[in-house]
Amino acid sequence: MVNYPNGKKAAVRHEPTSFADRGMKLEKDINRTNDYYRSIDRAIIHKKPTPVTIVKVDYPDRTAAKITEAYFKLPSTTDYNGIYRGKYIDFEAKECAVNTSFPLKSIHAHQIEHLSSVVRHGAIAFLIIRFTGLDITYLADAEEAIAYINSCGRRSIPYEWFTEHAYEIPYNYVRPVDYLSVVDRVYFGEGS
Amino acid sequence: MVNYPNGKKAAVRHEPTSFADRGMKLEKDINRTNDYYRSIDRAIIHKKPTPVTIVKVDYPDRTAAKITEAYFKLPSTTDYNGIYRGKYIDFEAKECAVNTSFPLKSIHAHQIEHLSSVVRHGAIAFLIIRFTGLDITYLADAEEAIAYINSCGRRSIPYEWFTEHAYEIPYNYVRPVDYLSVVDRVYFGEGS
Repeated sequence: MVNYPNGKKAAVRHEPTSFADRGMKLEKDINRTNDYYRSIDRAIIHKKPTPVTIVKVDYPDRTAAKITEAYFKLPSTTDYNGIYRGKYIDFEAKECAVNTSFPLKSIHAHQIEHLSSVVRHGAIAFLIIRFTGLDITYLADAEEAIAYINSCGRRSIPYEWFTEHAYEIPYNYVRPVDYLSVVDRVYFGEGS
Repeated sequence: MVNYPNGKKAAVRHEPTSFADRGMKLEKDINRTNDYYRSIDRAIIHKKPTPVTIVKVDYPDRTAAKITEAYFKLPSTTDYNGIYRGKYIDFEAKECAVNTSFPLKSIHAHQIEHLSSVVRHGAIAFLIIRFTGLDITYLADAEEAIAYINSCGRRSIPYEWFTEHAYEIPYNYVRPVDYLSVVDRVYFGEGS
C-alpha cells in the first residue's frame, strides 16, 4: 500500500454497487445449487420471483406486454421454498458485509413471522447467512435464530453466535451452497 | 335482440378485458381464502409473485426505486405453494370461460413438469379449475390430471372428466374457495 505524502492511506475505491446487484452473488450461488438439486431430482426448491407492484403496462402487441411503471414491494414471505425428502422446506438467504455481526434490519419482520409460522406447521426452516468478508456461509435453524432474536434485545446477531449455533455450509463447484448436506445432518440426523 | 336490416345479428360487444385482469376473480378468491386460513393458523399458503424480468430501474432516491422497463416472464413453477398439516402443498389455479372443456394451453408445460416433480417428492398437488360460465370450481388431483393429459392426446380436458374425477370446491363467504375442506377429504381421508 502506497501512502499519500501526508501519511494518510489512500481511500480504497470500491466500484459503486447498484441496489439490484447487492447480495446477488449468494442468490446466484443458491440458484445454481437448486438447479443442480433439481437436475438430479434430489429436491424441488425454487427462488420466488421478486415481488413488484405493477402500475402501468403498455400493450404494443399482445405477445410483448411492456411494464413501464412498477415498484418493488416488501416481501411477505421468505425467498425460497420447496420440497425435500417429503418435507416442506423454507428459508431466507442474506449476505452480510460486516465481519463481526449480522444486522437484523436486513430481515423484515414479516419474514421472521413467516418463518415462525412454518416452523409451527412442521417445516424445515432456516436462514442462510454469508459473511462476504470472511467468505463463509452458515445455515442457522430458524427456530433457534428467532429464539435468540426475541431474547437478546439486540439489533444484530454477533458472529460468535453463528460459530457456536449455526453450521458452515460446504462449497462445491456444482453445488456452490450445498445446504442440503447440512439439512441431512441437522434435520435428518445423518452423517457425523 | 334487434337485428340489422340485412338479417345479421348485431355483434355482441364485450368490454375489452385487459390482459392483467383476466382470471383475476379466482385469484382474488383464493388469496382471500388463504388469508383466512393464515388468520386462523390452519395453513401457510401464499401466491407467488408474478415473475417479471426487470430491465431498467430509475433511482430518483433510495427509498422509491422505480422500475421503468420490465416484461412478464413465463412461470417455471405453479402460482401457489405452502404447508398444511405438515405436508408440502402445491397447486395451480385457472379460470375457464368455456363450459364444455378446459383448454390445456392455459397451463404451461413447465408447470405440468413442476407438478409431476413435486408429486414424486411426496407433495399434495392439484389443479383448481373454475368454469366461470357455470360458476363451479373443481379441485383435480395433479397426478390423476397429468395421467389423463398424457394418455388422452387431446388439447383439452372435457368437462365430464371433471364431474367424474374432480371434486367440487364449496363456496363460503369467508373462504370463497374452501379447497382445504376437499384436501382433508381426498388426501387425509376425512369426512364423507
